[in-house]
Amino acid sequence: MNIPFMQYAIELAKSAEIGGEVPVGAVIVKDGKIIASAHNMIENKNDPTAHAEIIAIRSACEIIGSPRIIDCDLYVTLEPCPMCAQAISFARIRRLYFGAYDEKNGGVENGARIFTQSGCNHRPEVYGGMNESECGELLKGFFRGKRIVS
Amino acid sequence: MNIPFMQYAIELAKSAEIGGEVPVGAVIVKDGKIIASAHNMIENKNDPTAHAEIIAIRSACEIIGSPRIIDCDLYVTLEPCPMCAQAISFARIRRLYFGAYDEKNGGVENGARIFTQSGCNHRPEVYGGMNESECGELLKGFFRGKRIVS
Repeated sequence: MNIPFMQYAIELAKSAEIGGEVPVGAVIVKDGKIIASAHNMIENKNDPTAHAEIIAIRSACEIIGSPRIIDCDLYVTLEPCPMCAQAISFARIRRLYFGAYDEKNGGVENGARIFTQSGCNHRPEVYGGMNESECGELLKGFFRGKRIVS
Repeated sequence: MNIPFMQYAIELAKSAEIGGEVPVGAVIVKDGKIIASAHNMIENKNDPTAHAEIIAIRSACEIIGSPRIIDCDLYVTLEPCPMCAQAISFARIRRLYFGAYDEKNGGVENGARIFTQSGCNHRPEVYGGMNESECGELLKGFFRGKRIVS
């Protein structure tokens, strides 16, 4: 566990918000170094799969040259959705650290609970609630702002 | 429902197999025309998210210029996994037609059953079992070959 990595993911989440995206940031770490990082880019890229985790995983896989990046850890500010959780499993991510829990759309500790499904071939170690209040406040602030605008 | 679209997806699946990929093909149709198509490219692209459905959705979204492609239908030779099912929901795909059921890794009629989760904001119409035996035989043949090789 490393707080600075999550802090970096939080900074990425803030950048996402400036770009009009839901503030979520993700960092992939191998051997104590960041090898890929991203924030949500759904609206800017016109890509419904462009969640922070998916972009970071694709980037790390490209760098490593394999669709399976064992010995890599993922830090993300929000509990991954089912799409991202399944991608984390496919990529063979070793450890998943996430910030805020997502009761409505999360797919790790909530909803589909992807890693508990019998067909799930790889389950990362999961550590939820890291920097939880800061990560959660970012999201709450974003959606509060949206409601005021609309 | 249109058999030729699924037939085209089957041909794509065959191409995937030639490239060493699990034989799955996908086609996205809007106003009766194919606007995007793809087959699995996980190993060739070093991308664990490069399932046929994800590539086709990303391509269709780029063409339409939106992360939400309403009025589009997806034809895929295999029941989507949870990652792809969630992406189908995010993309607001109107109808999903799939070929073979996937008891182990499927996420629509099996396992996580993504569209039945309470947090799922968009559920496409789902038609499973289209050209089921042909789609299933392709996969069985592929995995049979793998076992003989290894």
